Amino acid sequence: MIGIFDSGIGGLTVVKALMEHLSGYDIIYFGDTARTPYGTKSSETVKKYALENTDFLLSKGAKIIVIACNTASSVATESVTENFNIPIFEVITPAVELSINTSHKLCIGIIGTRATVKSGIYEKKIREMKPKAKVYSKACPLLVPLVEEGWLKKPETKMIVKKYLHPLKVRQIDTLILGCTHYPLLKDIIQKKIGKKVNIIDSSIAVASKVKAFLENHQNINNMLSKKGMYRFFVSDVTEQFEKTAKSMLKIDIRLEHVSSS
Amino acid sequence: MIGIFDSGIGGLTVVKALMEHLSGYDIIYFGDTARTPYGTKSSETVKKYALENTDFLLSKGAKIIVIACNTASSVATESVTENFNIPIFEVITPAVELSINTSHKLCIGIIGTRATVKSGIYEKKIREMKPKAKVYSKACPLLVPLVEEGWLKKPETKMIVKKYLHPLKVRQIDTLILGCTHYPLLKDIIQKKIGKKVNIIDSSIAVASKVKAFLENHQNINNMLSKKGMYRFFVSDVTEQFEKTAKSMLKIDIRLEHVSSS
Repeated sequence: MIGIFDSGIGGLTVVKALMEHLSGYDIIYFGDTARTPYGTKSSETVKKYALENTDFLLSKGAKIIVIACNTASSVATESVTENFNIPIFEVITPAVELSINTSHKLCIGIIGTRATVKSGIYEKKIREMKPKAKVYSKACPLLVPLVEEGWLKKPETKMIVKKYLHPLKVRQIDTLILGCTHYPLLKDIIQKKIGKKVNIIDSSIAVASKVKAFLENHQNINNMLSKKGMYRFFVSDVTEQFEKTAKSMLKIDIRLEHVSSS
Repeated sequence: MIGIFDSGIGGLTVVKALMEHLSGYDIIYFGDTARTPYGTKSSETVKKYALENTDFLLSKGAKIIVIACNTASSVATESVTENFNIPIFEVITPAVELSINTSHKLCIGIIGTRATVKSGIYEKKIREMKPKAKVYSKACPLLVPLVEEGWLKKPETKMIVKKYLHPLKVRQIDTLILGCTHYPLLKDIIQKKIGKKVNIIDSSIAVASKVKAFLENHQNINNMLSKKGMYRFFVSDVTEQFEKTAKSMLKIDIRLEHVSSS
């Protein structure tokens, strides 16, 4: 199975992209809803959680892992890769590669949680590949609660998005990376406020393409993955909001399974 | 010592009220910042956390406990009282008593997190004492992230507060209970939006008065409490935001001590 974890519901955008790119592959999801959000927590705490979550997914039969949370991807990928001897994907590198391959001016904006932006990982990765790129970041801590609240089209959400994007807009970026897996749910508002000429990079789609390409080139691993179209969703805390959002996003009937976070 | 816990920074409003009402009493605080927020989590999870937090405070020398979190107060007070043989205070009953003693029309509004409002505990307690009272509740899940973000006076915050309070305003409540320890930080905006004639009940002040009265009537317990004006602040995750907010709220220099949440 393909194992995916996130701090909460955001990673479901990655599940959706994987369902579209790798139709029929079995997926096991873990949403750490008892300890969400990760974006406001320290690196040490997020690393500890990421290792525990990976361990859990392996115990349930995962053969590859997608860290579908930008905060965990930015601070915990190295620890997870060092501790587990299987292919680990994160959501940052695929988005960075896509952004530098499609940006004309190499003037790139990034939005994410406070932890992701503070880590500086997007700038670092972009500059490793394109030292002359101009990169501007903006932390947007209120967008996750707005998405979790379901306020996807409210005027207050539009105002807050506009306020957050303002410093990137004045820099005239031509590409904007959505550095948080919750943000694709606000893509329409974000596109409108940043301007229709700006190319928006959705990390959920970027990582799904990357996993697909990897499996096409690694048939031994591809053969280990079951393909019965089975999806299992584990959460560390069962809440109505998660079930409601998951059903409306994925358009399938899902049953949440509870697992205690340690 | 007086032990206090909260899911994060909200309980600092209770610390502040206790520092004012019981000047010089030693206080030990635990903010469960690694697992914050509690308001979106299930009752079972919040109960488990509350028992763990109480256990920790007792191990550090607490002789009485104040549950300075409305969510934990509403779902976990019974469990904590059953499991520990010391005086336990919660933030709901004192606010309820104050509201029914001061409301003229007995037309009372309550705002809180989704978990607190869903528990129905304020209505239940008010109706137990005043069966004819009219009680209206409104969940305001975005106010905690707005406070944690420090957006205390932003226009977006004012709009969101106005939207949340609208259904209570049309009911012409004469008293509004702030059913979340974060909300006193938004008291000015809330007062403006609900109308200046509405009496706002701040649960942090209500519980501090209650603890003070209890100690005056229980000298044996009062004598067990040390009074060197010492304050210790433990958190399960050390973040800059917590330290910054704590210093600006309490006007004292504090040093955060880290403790792992299990």
